[in-house]
Amino acid sequence: MTPFTRTSSDARLNPNVSVDCVIFGFDGERLKVLLIDRGQSVSDSDEEKVYALPGNLIREDEDLDKAAERVLFELTGLEDIFLEQFGSFGDPNRLTKEHDLEWLKSIRAEPDARVITVAYYSLIRADQYEIHASSFARDAVWHDIDALPPLGFDHAEIIESALRELKFKSKYQPLGFELLPEKFTLGQLQKLYEAILSTELDKRNFRRKILKMSFLVPLKEKQIGVPHKPARYYTFDKEKYQSYKSTDFYFTL
Amino acid sequence: MTPFTRTSSDARLNPNVSVDCVIFGFDGERLKVLLIDRGQSVSDSDEEKVYALPGNLIREDEDLDKAAERVLFELTGLEDIFLEQFGSFGDPNRLTKEHDLEWLKSIRAEPDARVITVAYYSLIRADQYEIHASSFARDAVWHDIDALPPLGFDHAEIIESALRELKFKSKYQPLGFELLPEKFTLGQLQKLYEAILSTELDKRNFRRKILKMSFLVPLKEKQIGVPHKPARYYTFDKEKYQSYKSTDFYFTL
Repeated sequence: MTPFTRTSSDARLNPNVSVDCVIFGFDGERLKVLLIDRGQSVSDSDEEKVYALPGNLIREDEDLDKAAERVLFELTGLEDIFLEQFGSFGDPNRLTKEHDLEWLKSIRAEPDARVITVAYYSLIRADQYEIHASSFARDAVWHDIDALPPLGFDHAEIIESALRELKFKSKYQPLGFELLPEKFTLGQLQKLYEAILSTELDKRNFRRKILKMSFLVPLKEKQIGVPHKPARYYTFDKEKYQSYKSTDFYFTL
Repeated sequence: MTPFTRTSSDARLNPNVSVDCVIFGFDGERLKVLLIDRGQSVSDSDEEKVYALPGNLIREDEDLDKAAERVLFELTGLEDIFLEQFGSFGDPNRLTKEHDLEWLKSIRAEPDARVITVAYYSLIRADQYEIHASSFARDAVWHDIDALPPLGFDHAEIIESALRELKFKSKYQPLGFELLPEKFTLGQLQKLYEAILSTELDKRNFRRKILKMSFLVPLKEKQIGVPHKPARYYTFDKEKYQSYKSTDFYFTL
């Protein structure tokens, strides 16, 4: 009686363990998070929809990483994305709110089972992936991280935790390679850091510090046709970028 | 038919989710890990015992952190230790090796159930805590991290992963406050870093870098009765140490 069709074999699901994916997206300006519309409103009189992270029970025969990939693909159409596990959430009452239970009854064989969820996150370029909602997701939509809609379960807490991890990671791993165009200005790079750290950064300080990073290569080319002084383009030295990524890079803005 | 008595109420266990604790111990010289003897040998002709991390299924009514505290206490007597979750392990075949299954049959109601484990770690002073094995642990013993005995399940992998986390953490959080005596020499502090990083460090480089850290306070007092030139004692400025711990400390040896 589930309202969705499986995309692959109907393997048995483990009733007690799920995966959830926090997919952050950068669109050049702002940080967003991908949420599914679970086809439910907060109350009868309320038009506000309830959203949730793309997530579902794992299959008995798949490991956690594979489960996260499969579930993300089934609900949003996203694939070939690097997912990183960042924590597990297991409050015994995380699924027991009335409207959450009501929704679970429409999609799960054992809606009352206790579920521990293993959470993954990723940061992608929001406008370079096509999103196709399917399975029990009525829709899959990017939401501004600063203006989240009503969320089911403990998903607000999970997003908060993923965001802490992302901010922390941005201090010891270089950022931007897959998030900015091939050539970009320092202003664009600063916008990325500002979106992730959700703070404004001092332009001069930012430039002074970021330009010490040898993976940033200045190009001869400058912006054209802009209404302000044209800015120089930069690009990433992929090799140096990767070696910073795997070693002792540390960056304090 | 389980060979152990519960220490508290007989709450129902969740068959699919466990916690495991990687307790690292520093004894002033070496890094160790606390393992339980599960009362089983590798083979009939072999006297080598199989060890495992302190771990067990969670109760249906407890959250993950509380489960880790309870299970650690039940098996080893350790309590009031700061446990940090660092990852979950869910290979579908992590419990299916023959000697693991055989052991599970002796302690679990559903020995064939798939179990995902949520792993925690801690670093304590090995000689300042009393260890009392109980429940299904025949014994609980510190083992040198460089000379681990045969381990059940995927526990070698879990320890490896915890060790990576510990090494990584030692770069951006100061270490030693609860692991060294109130007053200590820089040689003792170096030994701690060497044990965790499992590498020898250059004495001059180490001192030059560590002495930049304002949480290290030199004392007037020096060692007495030592067969070499007496070394100066240092102590931690607790307040500064804590503020380093919560901010942007970064330390590259």
